[in-house]
Amino acid sequence: MDLLEEINKRGSMVDGSIQSLMPIGEPDELYRAMRYLFDAGGKRLRPASLILSTEAVGGDPKNVIPAATAVELVHNFTLIHDDIMDQDNLRRGIPAVHVKWGLSGAILAGDTLYSKSFHILSQNDADAARMVECLTLMSITCTEICEGQWTDINFEKRNDVTEAEYMEMVMKKTAILYAASCKMGAILGGGTPEQAQALWDFGRLTGVGFQIFDDVLDLITPEDVLGKIRGSDLMEGKQTLIAIHARNNNLKLDVFGKRDATREEIDDALEKLKDSGSIDYAQDKALNFVAEGKKKLDILPNSEAKDIMLALADYMIERKF
Amino acid sequence: MDLLEEINKRGSMVDGSIQSLMPIGEPDELYRAMRYLFDAGGKRLRPASLILSTEAVGGDPKNVIPAATAVELVHNFTLIHDDIMDQDNLRRGIPAVHVKWGLSGAILAGDTLYSKSFHILSQNDADAARMVECLTLMSITCTEICEGQWTDINFEKRNDVTEAEYMEMVMKKTAILYAASCKMGAILGGGTPEQAQALWDFGRLTGVGFQIFDDVLDLITPEDVLGKIRGSDLMEGKQTLIAIHARNNNLKLDVFGKRDATREEIDDALEKLKDSGSIDYAQDKALNFVAEGKKKLDILPNSEAKDIMLALADYMIERKF
Repeated sequence: MDLLEEINKRGSMVDGSIQSLMPIGEPDELYRAMRYLFDAGGKRLRPASLILSTEAVGGDPKNVIPAATAVELVHNFTLIHDDIMDQDNLRRGIPAVHVKWGLSGAILAGDTLYSKSFHILSQNDADAARMVECLTLMSITCTEICEGQWTDINFEKRNDVTEAEYMEMVMKKTAILYAASCKMGAILGGGTPEQAQALWDFGRLTGVGFQIFDDVLDLITPEDVLGKIRGSDLMEGKQTLIAIHARNNNLKLDVFGKRDATREEIDDALEKLKDSGSIDYAQDKALNFVAEGKKKLDILPNSEAKDIMLALADYMIERKF
Repeated sequence: MDLLEEINKRGSMVDGSIQSLMPIGEPDELYRAMRYLFDAGGKRLRPASLILSTEAVGGDPKNVIPAATAVELVHNFTLIHDDIMDQDNLRRGIPAVHVKWGLSGAILAGDTLYSKSFHILSQNDADAARMVECLTLMSITCTEICEGQWTDINFEKRNDVTEAEYMEMVMKKTAILYAASCKMGAILGGGTPEQAQALWDFGRLTGVGFQIFDDVLDLITPEDVLGKIRGSDLMEGKQTLIAIHARNNNLKLDVFGKRDATREEIDDALEKLKDSGSIDYAQDKALNFVAEGKKKLDILPNSEAKDIMLALADYMIERKF
């Protein structure tokens, strides 16, 4: 199985439908701002997870394209507003929405994507009870994403973040949209409540593992592969599981929060983090979360979709960047 | 009938339920930012319109409190984000949310209110088909509010806005949330599709009339009643129906967009706008919209709620400020 080809096959179903589900309406410039990040690409992991979940419970992927599009648009909405808050001016190698359309334009493009996501989700063809379940799930999911972002922003002002707090933040900010995508795929695909719950857990656990592994990659990946300065999380003073483990083990890193740290200082910190076991600790956690997530799929019947989801979970902690 | 007492009676049902529907959760500071404008008060015209619509179709107002709360929270969300975009630092006589919680805090407080509104609406007790109808209506409504705000912002850069463009902007930015409130009240109250449509039209038409009359009041109300400088819309160069009518009649106003205009210049412009018939034109339009809106209620059976709604419509164009 070619994993990325299987993911792309599902992702392209969403690409092929965006023009009918969210055409460039009026005011046209607003709709161009809304479509900008979507049209710039992305791996479509959330739509693919939703579609695969539908297939894994025996549903027809063609029937869930609106829902799959909706989760990608929610993701785009969070990127647009997060880039304003984090003052990130580049996204996917191109200027961020607030750079191109200004602060008001970016706030409104995000806001409109937000309601459009609910509207597009509501166009999915399913019985009313399942639709209410999905729309409610989407609203809870979006609320928790916002709570996670608020918590993450406030971590920057603190140096006493606990592992439990970090885990909850990652669950809300990153993992819940994967969990919701998988669960909605199950609900709309006609899955049982047990299957929907298992797919929710799969998305949640592998999503947390994915994010923790991302923090590990920031430290251990060669810069030419990473495409940015190695150890940038350290220099930004970001609260990661690695930083929290180091602090809990009384390892003091001079480069933490030092934006002008030299290459030598970063390499020195990296050695210390290896010696303290902080990197291994985080990597093991990521592996365990993914392993736990994969186990949740045991209750599903065997299928190609299930195999792809298991492979995708492994990919999240085997990728090099 | 004491109109304001009747409105307050319905509005206070929403006040009494906010603590159970949207308690101060975690992160508590986020929830304080979300509750701030709600707790600061407001006339609760949208919740009252929703509850009255439920009563007018024979439904029980106690059953629609979540929906009535949801439309007020959507209104609060738009105020928070609009104040950022318009750089307004005061709201309801107190510092705006972005003044108290910063840009990121205000963006996130608005975003979270947005999804909470959908979540609270989804908690309304009604059959699934009616719930899907309401959730879909809410998503379309929020999209159009954003489109209206985008259009309004872009009006500032133009001096060729047509009456039709102005009308569409007001419909989206202001009137649609009244229309949606009334229609949701009808749907959840068990009304027929015809009743729901009539209440939608009532909300839409009286909402447009309300906004146009607001622009008239900005010019004709004594400053001690208005609470701000008379003619501020003129000095800000705001595209209103009055300004558009004046331009269409080749009346050139030197004070238009002149932020340091003197009292004499404003008074002079006001005389010219009276002579050109621009003020009368807008006032007549407002009266006509409200009259058209009231007619839509003809299909409803007589009831106290219907009488209150008709009185509320009149109040919108009889109020002095």
